[in-house]
Amino acid sequence: MLQLRSLVTADGTLELSLAEVETPAPGAGEILVRIDATPINPSDIGLLFGAADMTAATVAGTPDRPVVTAPIPPALMRAMAARVGESMPVGNEAGGVVVAAGEGAEHLVGKTVGIIGGAMYAQFRTVRARDAIVAPDGVDAEAAASCFVNPLTALGMTETMRREGHKALVHTAAASNLGQMLNRICIKDGIALINIVRSAAQAATLRDLGAAHVVDSSQPGFMDALVAALVETGATIAFDAIGGGKLAGQILTAMEIAVNKTAREYSRYGSAVHKQVYIYGGLDTGPTELNRGFGMAWGIGGWLLFPFLQKIGAADAQALRDRVAAELTTTFASHYTARITLAEALGLPAITGYNRRATGEKYLITPNA
Amino acid sequence: MLQLRSLVTADGTLELSLAEVETPAPGAGEILVRIDATPINPSDIGLLFGAADMTAATVAGTPDRPVVTAPIPPALMRAMAARVGESMPVGNEAGGVVVAAGEGAEHLVGKTVGIIGGAMYAQFRTVRARDAIVAPDGVDAEAAASCFVNPLTALGMTETMRREGHKALVHTAAASNLGQMLNRICIKDGIALINIVRSAAQAATLRDLGAAHVVDSSQPGFMDALVAALVETGATIAFDAIGGGKLAGQILTAMEIAVNKTAREYSRYGSAVHKQVYIYGGLDTGPTELNRGFGMAWGIGGWLLFPFLQKIGAADAQALRDRVAAELTTTFASHYTARITLAEALGLPAITGYNRRATGEKYLITPNA
Repeated sequence: MLQLRSLVTADGTLELSLAEVETPAPGAGEILVRIDATPINPSDIGLLFGAADMTAATVAGTPDRPVVTAPIPPALMRAMAARVGESMPVGNEAGGVVVAAGEGAEHLVGKTVGIIGGAMYAQFRTVRARDAIVAPDGVDAEAAASCFVNPLTALGMTETMRREGHKALVHTAAASNLGQMLNRICIKDGIALINIVRSAAQAATLRDLGAAHVVDSSQPGFMDALVAALVETGATIAFDAIGGGKLAGQILTAMEIAVNKTAREYSRYGSAVHKQVYIYGGLDTGPTELNRGFGMAWGIGGWLLFPFLQKIGAADAQALRDRVAAELTTTFASHYTARITLAEALGLPAITGYNRRATGEKYLITPNA
Repeated sequence: MLQLRSLVTADGTLELSLAEVETPAPGAGEILVRIDATPINPSDIGLLFGAADMTAATVAGTPDRPVVTAPIPPALMRAMAARVGESMPVGNEAGGVVVAAGEGAEHLVGKTVGIIGGAMYAQFRTVRARDAIVAPDGVDAEAAASCFVNPLTALGMTETMRREGHKALVHTAAASNLGQMLNRICIKDGIALINIVRSAAQAATLRDLGAAHVVDSSQPGFMDALVAALVETGATIAFDAIGGGKLAGQILTAMEIAVNKTAREYSRYGSAVHKQVYIYGGLDTGPTELNRGFGMAWGIGGWLLFPFLQKIGAADAQALRDRVAAELTTTFASHYTARITLAEALGLPAITGYNRRATGEKYLITPNA
């Protein structure tokens, strides 16, 4: 079978290729899944490309076995040290059909499942049966392919909001697949959500999907509109996919202004209401700049799905997965804008496309098409 | 009696003056304290000067009743809106002698106490007896004057370190009065402390005081020295008095490098060890810049003493106060570099001096001298 590999060499080159490896056999409690669909999520691209400059990538090899090479800027090689020389499989999640099973998992043969665990950019993958989400009847592999990362991340946001005592939510890059999913969750669950987008077209997309609060950071009245939405919703927590620039700080500043609009007396340290931004992506890889004009009751930090799931424990994490399975074609539906083979995934047109990480664009690899 | 006041007018002027007010009478459970010593802490200066440009301050009035005025830049008046027109007393903490007491507090008359609660830049202050720390015999008002803000802040740092699961501590602007106190606490309690300073002289000061880990951010080898100290101590939490610039991000980056030196495998999201910086001051009022080269397991946020004390609860807060009283002239001793009257505090030489907030310099007001 074919498996996509990413290798960083000691001389500072990234090399992407398709390795021919033996198809693994499922052990007890395991299933062998034929991968029919596996999405390219922003969270896959870091491992795939490392710190390489993909604008300088070149392709050699053959059409069926392309080999992509790209230079890694010397200043960034230190961060790559731990993976030098190790040919790494890639791909967080996938959907497919169970074609073989080990002892105790035989009942799953023929079922369509969603699976997670890395090395999904391949024709087959063996996983523990208990780690798969079994798709309801009538749900195909494409629909099952994105049933972990985006759905659980979006549910993780509303769960974090509740567990940390906030009553409404702010989300950036909000017209993304993930953002549209979060919008559906919030509408269904009655959670007030402020969607921050970066263009009028994205704002229209979300309004068409029923979003009540959409603010466009490309407009001159952005801060006033954001403050008004924060006053209306009482949101004091945000999830930010962008990371770099001033946006995270602007959100905290707007929250502080909104909270102080209802304050009764002057506090030299700003409001006592805690305001939180979690950065879960890095669409802007530049520095985060905080002017700290938002008092002393604030926090900003990284947020990742897997540590969150560990923190809430197995039972609560399973409840989230059960909800995803039940609403896979409604609340948690994903939309793809391009379908490519493993070989096409190593072509420059596709690389340029999915590396753009454009909001609303999503690539799906179909390794057995 | 005289009481220092800070007023922001609607036309954008700060006005500092000495008001003549009636000496309050203590009610039941209260004590009247003659203020003999009250420090000017960085945390007082925000309320005292607001957003005014003190380099443009002028003094009128008489030598005994000076009136300072200074312009507030129009762009900063929005942040002052809540205090316009309200003549505010200033001063967080003080030391003095109980000269009268209400019912139930008569036993305290004649005692030297440390008190907290605002409006301390005055000749007298009434407070609840239970909020005072009674100084041990032989301890004078000057020693009692700084027994809340710095001691409890320094203890709050080691307490936060323990409660959030860290095993060693980083502190910036570490040669300050507070920093020297934290250094004494950590030596006494066996806590590894990394002191970050900004000059060779400050480094020497701390080494002379027995500090084991001192790194100087003005030296070219700063990051390497910081990483080495982090590897040695395992510190994953920092308290930062500076706030602006790149230092907070550099600390997180150095922590991530230190943690990864012992990591066994590559993790695309960086180490799973949570790294935290709390900003508790703003010696650099410029923006905080984070390059986010430190994985996803990180947090940065504001830290304030009073919310911390509320969070840990009355019993635990009292235990900290008891320790301060017991070690007031040793671990928690403060050193003052200038003693001034209330009128002198409103003179330009003193204002220039204490507004510099120079590390190791500390002003004490003696309202009844």
